[in-house]
Amino acid sequence: MTSFNVGLLGHGTVGSAFHTLLEERADSIEFSTGMRPELSGVLTRSRGEFSDILERSDLVVELIGGVDPAREYILAAIGAGKHVVTANKQVLSQHGEEIYEAARQAGVQLRFEAAVGGVVPCIRVIHETLAAAHIDRVHGIVNGTTNFILTRMTETGASYEDALAEAQQLGYAEADPTDDVNGKDAAAKMAILARLAFRAPVHLDDVQYEGITHVTAEDIEYAKDLGLSLKLIGTADRRNGGISVRVHPAFLYPGHPLAAVNGPFNAVTVESPAITEITLSGPGAGGPQTASAVLGDVISAMIPPPTLPPPATDIPLVRDIESAFYLYVEVADRPGVLARVAEILGLQGVSIKSVVQKGLGEDARLVMVTHPVLESRFRAAVELIGGLDFLRSRPRVLRVIEEQFEVPA
Amino acid sequence: MTSFNVGLLGHGTVGSAFHTLLEERADSIEFSTGMRPELSGVLTRSRGEFSDILERSDLVVELIGGVDPAREYILAAIGAGKHVVTANKQVLSQHGEEIYEAARQAGVQLRFEAAVGGVVPCIRVIHETLAAAHIDRVHGIVNGTTNFILTRMTETGASYEDALAEAQQLGYAEADPTDDVNGKDAAAKMAILARLAFRAPVHLDDVQYEGITHVTAEDIEYAKDLGLSLKLIGTADRRNGGISVRVHPAFLYPGHPLAAVNGPFNAVTVESPAITEITLSGPGAGGPQTASAVLGDVISAMIPPPTLPPPATDIPLVRDIESAFYLYVEVADRPGVLARVAEILGLQGVSIKSVVQKGLGEDARLVMVTHPVLESRFRAAVELIGGLDFLRSRPRVLRVIEEQFEVPA
Repeated sequence: MTSFNVGLLGHGTVGSAFHTLLEERADSIEFSTGMRPELSGVLTRSRGEFSDILERSDLVVELIGGVDPAREYILAAIGAGKHVVTANKQVLSQHGEEIYEAARQAGVQLRFEAAVGGVVPCIRVIHETLAAAHIDRVHGIVNGTTNFILTRMTETGASYEDALAEAQQLGYAEADPTDDVNGKDAAAKMAILARLAFRAPVHLDDVQYEGITHVTAEDIEYAKDLGLSLKLIGTADRRNGGISVRVHPAFLYPGHPLAAVNGPFNAVTVESPAITEITLSGPGAGGPQTASAVLGDVISAMIPPPTLPPPATDIPLVRDIESAFYLYVEVADRPGVLARVAEILGLQGVSIKSVVQKGLGEDARLVMVTHPVLESRFRAAVELIGGLDFLRSRPRVLRVIEEQFEVPA
Repeated sequence: MTSFNVGLLGHGTVGSAFHTLLEERADSIEFSTGMRPELSGVLTRSRGEFSDILERSDLVVELIGGVDPAREYILAAIGAGKHVVTANKQVLSQHGEEIYEAARQAGVQLRFEAAVGGVVPCIRVIHETLAAAHIDRVHGIVNGTTNFILTRMTETGASYEDALAEAQQLGYAEADPTDDVNGKDAAAKMAILARLAFRAPVHLDDVQYEGITHVTAEDIEYAKDLGLSLKLIGTADRRNGGISVRVHPAFLYPGHPLAAVNGPFNAVTVESPAITEITLSGPGAGGPQTASAVLGDVISAMIPPPTLPPPATDIPLVRDIESAFYLYVEVADRPGVLARVAEILGLQGVSIKSVVQKGLGEDARLVMVTHPVLESRFRAAVELIGGLDFLRSRPRVLRVIEEQFEVPA
């Protein structure tokens, strides 16, 4: 067994989640790469020695955050010929060119999917899928904290202060939310995306940014009247032969790909003439999600990506599955009709979630939504209902996907 | 100069768009890969000889579609040691295992991003980004024709037949729409996604599918009453130790990541415990978009993906850019106030798109949205407005992103 040694710098929320995930997925990674990832050492403020860890590692994962000492560790690892994976938007948006150039000189890999967009693979898509495309613009909601706050202000009419307090209570905002709410966090991420999209050396200082602390409930209310929704939008685009990179609260018309991105979600839209546009969205980063993006980078550094699907293994196909259903029946409007339909459903174990009777007399209809039930049992019930003499037409059936994704209240 | 020879099978809508795009992007591809892509030959029904083209090619692009003769051509190209890029969902969903195994034996690449999801890079994301993740479910709107029809039925109350006729008129549905509207096209795509997500040999015949031809305007109307929206949803998920793959019309609750995907768009949501979920969305495939996905695959086959950002080139930063603005002013309610504000805006070249006066007397406010204008000019106007004696507080300014993305009517 070949092992692949990973040195871990930092053991906070993301670092410890990465540690756990690496151990959980080690068997699966060994199966698909032929190498077993092993933790060669962990550096925290109180334990570990950087030079020891470096010497024992094939790759260094930097999850300390901030500029110093992260920058020195990353450059030292590159200088020692080690691959580097980082989630550090501060250091990349301020010292990216120095770090990329050092990695190029040393011939090592430098990966940073986790620095931008939470679980959303926007780095890989811009960097690889769109490698040959001429990108005109990148729009992003790249800060989950501010998107949560603006969503709550919109939904409940809350003030900025109340929505921030709620975000802090739910863990979507830190005790000191300064860099989130003033737009600086989003600005760092947009600098990194702009660097990749346009191959221009964009520095954090090049990004004009504005936060959401001055947004009032009234602004949001008026915008609603105009049919607009307010988001903290990062934009990087080509303008007059140059590029512009900025972050500011902006109103979006309905139908804009980012207008429906609510709660602590991140989303990035990339526009290019060849593809029109692609939008990627998903939850903003919590510890486990960021750790998962970091692990994806580690695996990409271990082996080149597959160039065709891996061999298949047989997994049984399940055909009769549970689902919720919509059932529509046109009935004669007379006593006992609903009771008879409900009885048949009940005998097959179909439980009704909601029922509405529409119309009267010759026009009476029942519209029902069931709780999840095995399709075979539901179909059996519909067959029986279809035979009832008070039906005016065949029952109509459609599926209902019952999950509700809602912003926690 | 090294050239990289690409043989093109098929010269229909996608094939000719690919031909054009390859020539347009050849310089850029040569710059980033060090190899110049050259068309080594084109096979159509009336011209070209397959064996000649094969001999002269490093890679074969198959855009004929359908099972025969596409399958034989693909297998012959693989057998001759050539890489293959295809957009052919039929052949992959019915003969995928045979083709993947042949490519594995021959040690060549087989890429097919364009077979599923239009411009949405769902193959690459499942195959590479999520290579280490345990995927629980893939949900997709993978047929733009049916999504357009259902969207129009929802928006206008049109019947299925009328919405289909409109889709045909706008080029979103073919003259013979059978495989789109009966769910078979989506089923083939879900078979391919399920194969990648679960590494199970899923065949088109394993997919239970149902189309939208029986959906009525009434179903959609009732669902609206229940707060649901109807989509043709492909689902591949783990169930009872096995997997289930199916396509059917299904109602979604608001907030579901696919509920807001309207018009001729495609979207795919991937769920995994580590990442929660990722949603990718974009326009369904037209000729140029599919060609762009094919070209992305060709470039990936030419060189391994980059492992760090390429060197940057200097591009000027533009700071003063055009934008539309929202302007909110609290004013004394007396004659001439709006005229005075409008005059100042007009002198700076700011043109007003909409204005609403709210409240009366001491509570009067003007809420305006401008047409796009240089930020410096708008700020100058706001500075002047801020000095007017009838203002009751500082003017408030936010940006408006003016693009409206709407389903063509």
